[in-house]
Amino acid sequence: MKVGVFGAAGYGGVELLRLLAKHPQVELAYVSELQTGRPMSEFYPHLRSVCEAVSEESDVAEAAGRADVLFFCLQPGVGTTMVRDAVAGGKKVIDFSADFRLRSVDVYEAHYDKHAAPDLVGRAPYGLPELYRDEIRGADFVAVPGCHPTASILAAAPLVKEPLVDLSSIVIDSKTGISGVGRGHINLMNHYPEAAETVAAYSMPRHRHVPEMEQALGDVAGTEVKLTFAPSRVPMVRGILATVFATLLDPKADLQSAYDEFYADEPFVRVMPAGELPSTKHVAGMNYVDVAVCRDDVCGRAVAFGVVDNIIKGLSGAAVQCMNLMCGFDETTGLDVISVWP
Amino acid sequence: MKVGVFGAAGYGGVELLRLLAKHPQVELAYVSELQTGRPMSEFYPHLRSVCEAVSEESDVAEAAGRADVLFFCLQPGVGTTMVRDAVAGGKKVIDFSADFRLRSVDVYEAHYDKHAAPDLVGRAPYGLPELYRDEIRGADFVAVPGCHPTASILAAAPLVKEPLVDLSSIVIDSKTGISGVGRGHINLMNHYPEAAETVAAYSMPRHRHVPEMEQALGDVAGTEVKLTFAPSRVPMVRGILATVFATLLDPKADLQSAYDEFYADEPFVRVMPAGELPSTKHVAGMNYVDVAVCRDDVCGRAVAFGVVDNIIKGLSGAAVQCMNLMCGFDETTGLDVISVWP
Amino acid sequence: MKVGVFGAAGYGGVELLRLLAKHPQVELAYVSELQTGRPMSEFYPHLRSVCEAVSEESDVAEAAGRADVLFFCLQPGVGTTMVRDAVAGGKKVIDFSADFRLRSVDVYEAHYDKHAAPDLVGRAPYGLPELYRDEIRGADFVAVPGCHPTASILAAAPLVKEPLVDLSSIVIDSKTGISGVGRGHINLMNHYPEAAETVAAYSMPRHRHVPEMEQALGDVAGTEVKLTFAPSRVPMVRGILATVFATLLDPKADLQSAYDEFYADEPFVRVMPAGELPSTKHVAGMNYVDVAVCRDDVCGRAVAFGVVDNIIKGLSGAAVQCMNLMCGFDETTGLDVISVWP
Amino acid sequence: MKVGVFGAAGYGGVELLRLLAKHPQVELAYVSELQTGRPMSEFYPHLRSVCEAVSEESDVAEAAGRADVLFFCLQPGVGTTMVRDAVAGGKKVIDFSADFRLRSVDVYEAHYDKHAAPDLVGRAPYGLPELYRDEIRGADFVAVPGCHPTASILAAAPLVKEPLVDLSSIVIDSKTGISGVGRGHINLMNHYPEAAETVAAYSMPRHRHVPEMEQALGDVAGTEVKLTFAPSRVPMVRGILATVFATLLDPKADLQSAYDEFYADEPFVRVMPAGELPSTKHVAGMNYVDVAVCRDDVCGRAVAFGVVDNIIKGLSGAAVQCMNLMCGFDETTGLDVISVWP
Repeated sequence: MKVGVFGAAGYGGVELLRLLAKHPQVELAYVSELQTGRPMSEFYPHLRSVCEAVSEESDVAEAAGRADVLFFCLQPGVGTTMVRDAVAGGKKVIDFSADFRLRSVDVYEAHYDKHAAPDLVGRAPYGLPELYRDEIRGADFVAVPGCHPTASILAAAPLVKEPLVDLSSIVIDSKTGISGVGRGHINLMNHYPEAAETVAAYSMPRHRHVPEMEQALGDVAGTEVKLTFAPSRVPMVRGILATVFATLLDPKADLQSAYDEFYADEPFVRVMPAGELPSTKHVAGMNYVDVAVCRDDVCGRAVAFGVVDNIIKGLSGAAVQCMNLMCGFDETTGLDVISVWP
Repeated sequence: MKVGVFGAAGYGGVELLRLLAKHPQVELAYVSELQTGRPMSEFYPHLRSVCEAVSEESDVAEAAGRADVLFFCLQPGVGTTMVRDAVAGGKKVIDFSADFRLRSVDVYEAHYDKHAAPDLVGRAPYGLPELYRDEIRGADFVAVPGCHPTASILAAAPLVKEPLVDLSSIVIDSKTGISGVGRGHINLMNHYPEAAETVAAYSMPRHRHVPEMEQALGDVAGTEVKLTFAPSRVPMVRGILATVFATLLDPKADLQSAYDEFYADEPFVRVMPAGELPSTKHVAGMNYVDVAVCRDDVCGRAVAFGVVDNIIKGLSGAAVQCMNLMCGFDETTGLDVISVWP
Repeated sequence: MKVGVFGAAGYGGVELLRLLAKHPQVELAYVSELQTGRPMSEFYPHLRSVCEAVSEESDVAEAAGRADVLFFCLQPGVGTTMVRDAVAGGKKVIDFSADFRLRSVDVYEAHYDKHAAPDLVGRAPYGLPELYRDEIRGADFVAVPGCHPTASILAAAPLVKEPLVDLSSIVIDSKTGISGVGRGHINLMNHYPEAAETVAAYSMPRHRHVPEMEQALGDVAGTEVKLTFAPSRVPMVRGILATVFATLLDPKADLQSAYDEFYADEPFVRVMPAGELPSTKHVAGMNYVDVAVCRDDVCGRAVAFGVVDNIIKGLSGAAVQCMNLMCGFDETTGLDVISVWP
Repeated sequence: MKVGVFGAAGYGGVELLRLLAKHPQVELAYVSELQTGRPMSEFYPHLRSVCEAVSEESDVAEAAGRADVLFFCLQPGVGTTMVRDAVAGGKKVIDFSADFRLRSVDVYEAHYDKHAAPDLVGRAPYGLPELYRDEIRGADFVAVPGCHPTASILAAAPLVKEPLVDLSSIVIDSKTGISGVGRGHINLMNHYPEAAETVAAYSMPRHRHVPEMEQALGDVAGTEVKLTFAPSRVPMVRGILATVFATLLDPKADLQSAYDEFYADEPFVRVMPAGELPSTKHVAGMNYVDVAVCRDDVCGRAVAFGVVDNIIKGLSGAAVQCMNLMCGFDETTGLDVISVWP
């Protein structure tokens, strides 16, 4: 299977190239980036003598002529019409931007800019196989979830199924490493001396990733879900820890069993044993999400946790997982990467 | 005024020595530490040619003979009986441990070990001047708050006054730098290669600092308060960011004004302007707590933030602030330290 | 090919398990660690559902019964007699300790403790294929180099060949991440709050790795080489940057060409283009050493650089590279790992 | 004494404001910055309610009308003519840029751009009181040294005095935290995810700070000194460790005594006891330079170390120290700041 990658020099793009390079069933046939004609190893010196790809101009027709699967690793709004053209051309399309995650144009435009391809909104399943596997399996167009949403949704999903909690009580606090800003956002806030040695709140009171969390958890619950979300930046490169709080309907609910069952057959979700708590280091460099849950008996509240590598399970790993489903490969192909420790 | 310090070589102790060294109205007359006979600069090389103090054996009678104010910078349970003796001896005593923060022996013993001086429990005001200034001013014995509680209580207090929120809805997520573990807890979890580049949840579901938060917020509210608290460790040295979530009684409440008013006269609380969000770097090295508040109108919820330097306003700075009140000095004396940036 | 690993729960051991897991020609048949009967995922939570191995008691006979290649990932002096027994048993043995790197018992004992198997000293080739490939290829016993030596020797080797520099003028300054201390050295110096935000000199004036550098560079030069070596610790997890200074015999020597030629056929040495300088991030997580060289024309001096991941090319990757040569596999098998960025 | 600061919002500027705020004999009368009309606390939120200063337009006449001492905290070439005007106006002028450190216009222009005030070159003593105290004491114009040079020169000076070493053999390897780039150099290299977890060489083979090192060490030696200098960036905010290597003339020289004597009366140089080695954490936040020396007897070489806080003793602290000398204050006034630990 030939694949093409648009926006290859961002953090999502380079992680995708890494995973595709070890994927036994794909071959990289096209790579584009704003700065054209440069070997990927000029953007990323660690790729010298590892990756031969050279960035080309972004051209959907050209890419479509060479590849069967096209990945668009671009910021919201940047590649919208290219994505539309690629879908129209009958290619399998996997989009990293937020453009096609939400089913409502209005909600999208309330959090982002005016949508350049509103007719296509609602067409792509949300690329979280743990919740939308059947839709992804048959799809030719998938929208990869945001990184905060992946950790948050998977940490919360077993609570809202049935549900075990008051759906109006959900609060999520999510801590992210600085790589979440991407390679392009070079500014004072991310200047090393300013970003080191501090944890800082941001994007309050409504981070633009909240609607996708509400949409996905609403799908699990079968009814509308609204939640409060507070993100903060922590001084490390990779990883997200999302902490979910919700009031239990039955204060004695067996949460551990609920989580064990909910994720019993999932290849990339590891439910931690009762009493253990997650650390982003446990999943850094890998496609796993580790989830854990405990009960505050004094307050009758569930506290659940999800950790992901924001660029793997939170982005490019999820994209490969979706590609595997879309192409009929085994879902885990190319994703059995093991990370270094420490 | 002569002062003495027990447990001077811990992180709280060394920060206290730093602040006392610049305090114009005190003189250091006694310093103790487990390893006796060593200059403080052997424990802390940055103090070479700065601090001449030499650690002596811990001896309350000796210390009381030399000093009027005694600081006990020791872990819970370690100095309990020494504190009792010092109080009995009529000295002004400021205790860093958790031993005398709670007014209930039962609650203490449910979270710590058996109490060695239960008769003294309830005797010391809680050393948070913003809430207990009058009690501290007349006191000869004060219990310094924990670091998570200081950030959490001050972030939440204006919400529970009156109250503005459903008192059963309070959730706090607090992120701390690794220095919070102290200098003594040298273990695998705090080994640099393991603690770097990861954020990890811990002490769930009931961190032992929760009862002091509930006690103090209950005092503000005038009724019992129970809350859920989830701490996490972030890979930096100093700082705490506590995020408080609570459901508003009036979803249109003017939270900014409530915070501005609540802290109008406080010398060490800076309420951030509407729309700004705190970063621990803003207070690192200083005795300030910065608080901020915003409203999630979709969910009718308040989200408030508090940041402190966990070893200054979260420990040793608070102790000096209490000493100032206990001794009739201006409350801010010796605390106008300005930190480096970056 | 069946392999066994002694000391699997150290940083060298866990990295070796990671590489072996993806090596297409080996199967893990034995794993030992001081704490026996524990799944490797208890030592390293990221290995949950990734690695099924359980630590067994260290027993050379048992291991030799199951495996053809035995790796000893132990501190100097700890596994010496086990290594001797394994070699005597006819197994292929790869030793991570410093015990068999030096050809002189006297030099060893001057820098370490008394040697427990002096008869075996000098028997193992030094496991740096770039300099000792032929010896390693036929060997059944190899001593893996230290991490500082790998970066230093490979940075300096083209200078001492011929030689291009005054052999008495060599000075090396090497900066290492904290993981170099291993998982076992849990002490105040490596306590996160103490190790963060500082660079510190150590092990002066003679780090115990100096003799292996002198031995290997002496082999390249064909005459004795003595050098001065100053290591420092930098606050990061992985990576070494060694900087080599030496006075040129011909101040106009074409150093770039000398390096390009010296390493022309090396699969894991990347000579940087003229004008580019190395960063440890370029090799972190991979088996490469990047080397660069430049000329200070004012002083007539060469300055060369080598960067490695201290646990891969600096330890476990080198071990696998040696195993490949010893077993007749392609030298690069299992070592084409690509690392994450950032 | 009234003082004015140009370029107050850089890292050197804000550190200077911090020190001046606690200096008992000065009053801040003027502050300028490119972005005018902004309170300093907008640039630096930690200064809220601490510093009332508001940035004004850069205007030497205006500043000279209000202040007696003017600090220019600007990049090389930016404030050259303003400095000239201020000197011509008879003010005491302290310049942070490199413009007036070198006595040779040619050498300056070979490493920087064309000089805009060549007539003034050579007029200002080099602001390193340990070597140029007498010149600074009488001066009305001083050039503050670079940060690498301060650590390097003070580490090397006792060796080149007399000299104890072959003056042609000096090699310096200097490791700096990222704050050395300043607040203005916001680029990919300093983007947190790229700068974290890596040590990287830069500015080879001739960093533009080398000529000031050669000039100052030449002054100490009484003859020309040329040296090789290799800097690297380490992932921390503050601090420099410079390591100096040089061949001993007498391989048995008593280096410790030489250092102890050379710096016997220096208030801000701490010679470490024999056998101890420096760490940048020992001086972070303070105006000290710690130096240490040892002897590699195998090679007959001295290895000396110097650590400084690059923004204090390496910049703004040195500036205040010079001001004290220029104004007849005690040299240590306002510089007895004690830093936090950890």
